Amino acid sequence: MSLIDAFNWRYATKKFDAAKKVDDQIVEQIIEATRLAPTSSGLQPFELLVITNQEIKEKIVPVSYGQEMPAQCSHLLVFAVWDNYTNERIEHIYDITTREREVAPDRYDAYKKRLKEGFSKKTTEQNQQHAARQAYIALGFAMAEAAANKVDTVPMEGFSTTELDELLQLPQKGLRSVLMLPIGYRDEENDWLLKMKKVRHPKSEFVTYIP
Amino acid sequence: MSLIDAFNWRYATKKFDAAKKVDDQIVEQIIEATRLAPTSSGLQPFELLVITNQEIKEKIVPVSYGQEMPAQCSHLLVFAVWDNYTNERIEHIYDITTREREVAPDRYDAYKKRLKEGFSKKTTEQNQQHAARQAYIALGFAMAEAAANKVDTVPMEGFSTTELDELLQLPQKGLRSVLMLPIGYRDEENDWLLKMKKVRHPKSEFVTYIP
Repeated sequence: MSLIDAFNWRYATKKFDAAKKVDDQIVEQIIEATRLAPTSSGLQPFELLVITNQEIKEKIVPVSYGQEMPAQCSHLLVFAVWDNYTNERIEHIYDITTREREVAPDRYDAYKKRLKEGFSKKTTEQNQQHAARQAYIALGFAMAEAAANKVDTVPMEGFSTTELDELLQLPQKGLRSVLMLPIGYRDEENDWLLKMKKVRHPKSEFVTYIP
Repeated sequence: MSLIDAFNWRYATKKFDAAKKVDDQIVEQIIEATRLAPTSSGLQPFELLVITNQEIKEKIVPVSYGQEMPAQCSHLLVFAVWDNYTNERIEHIYDITTREREVAPDRYDAYKKRLKEGFSKKTTEQNQQHAARQAYIALGFAMAEAAANKVDTVPMEGFSTTELDELLQLPQKGLRSVLMLPIGYRDEENDWLLKMKKVRHPKSEFVTYIP
């Protein structure tokens, strides 16, 4: 199995067919792909919001500088990262890990201590940047699963994170939005970008082999 | 086609079977998946190094705080981001885009101007952070293509970027390393992590539906 055809098929969908909804089962697969993505030390420092409420989706259009994909799409995924790495959050995931792996209760003590010390030495901004990078890997997994199922997506950084955070009440949950991923089906007739060739740096510029 | 089985199959490989090499064709597919990943404004602000030179791979072990995966793996991928967004780099990719899409020469003038102004207002550090995030999406694509082909990987942030940059002479190319991805085949018998259950936050904690 290769994803190259799916990755060539996908493109940044600029216009969705608002009438076409993605089946729940496929949405769940995309969510699961996101959940299964790897993260630094397994901390998974982000959460996913899945918005189908049309009123809220429409309120996100002005927050996205007028881009209409959040309103047109079938499901709007929002990736929101932890506002910081805290001892409680580190303890929590390692509690789960200790239980699920059925290892000794002190198995991760030294490792947790090192993590806590490491993150506490960094600034909030540094920790948020680090958490954001993990969410971007998961975005890749989500887009791959979507493309494998011929579901369209468009990764969006172009929105006011402050306004979206406020609208979704993320600060109250200790979260900050970093990415949106509208998913749905392309409007075949009216998406101007669909007709455009996918362009990348040629492989000769992109890759250096060190044999 | 779904990737969920492949994503469940994959794990952060801690010990590779050094005798098993990944076929060139599959390596090229993984490179192509990386190249096809989406990036902000299509700028693709990173390059990929593919290292098979055993001497260099071994030199990377101490740079990685003693972790041996860079030496054991079949191919070592290094993701290196632009040290900054520059007018020349922006012009270059839009020259390619204009040519390949056969659009009017001035088609992207206003857009390029906006990009140049935007990036020039940010600090080098901010621009490197932004470029790094794009590379993390591509890491996701690379890992998905690898898993779909039952090729093992381990995403690595744990190395001295300064030392790796120096070893690979990246600053001279205007690049900075942000990620490594050793690829190869797991050592079934000797990888301690292989026996451990994959653990994630339960879906109930990870996802919030807003219907």
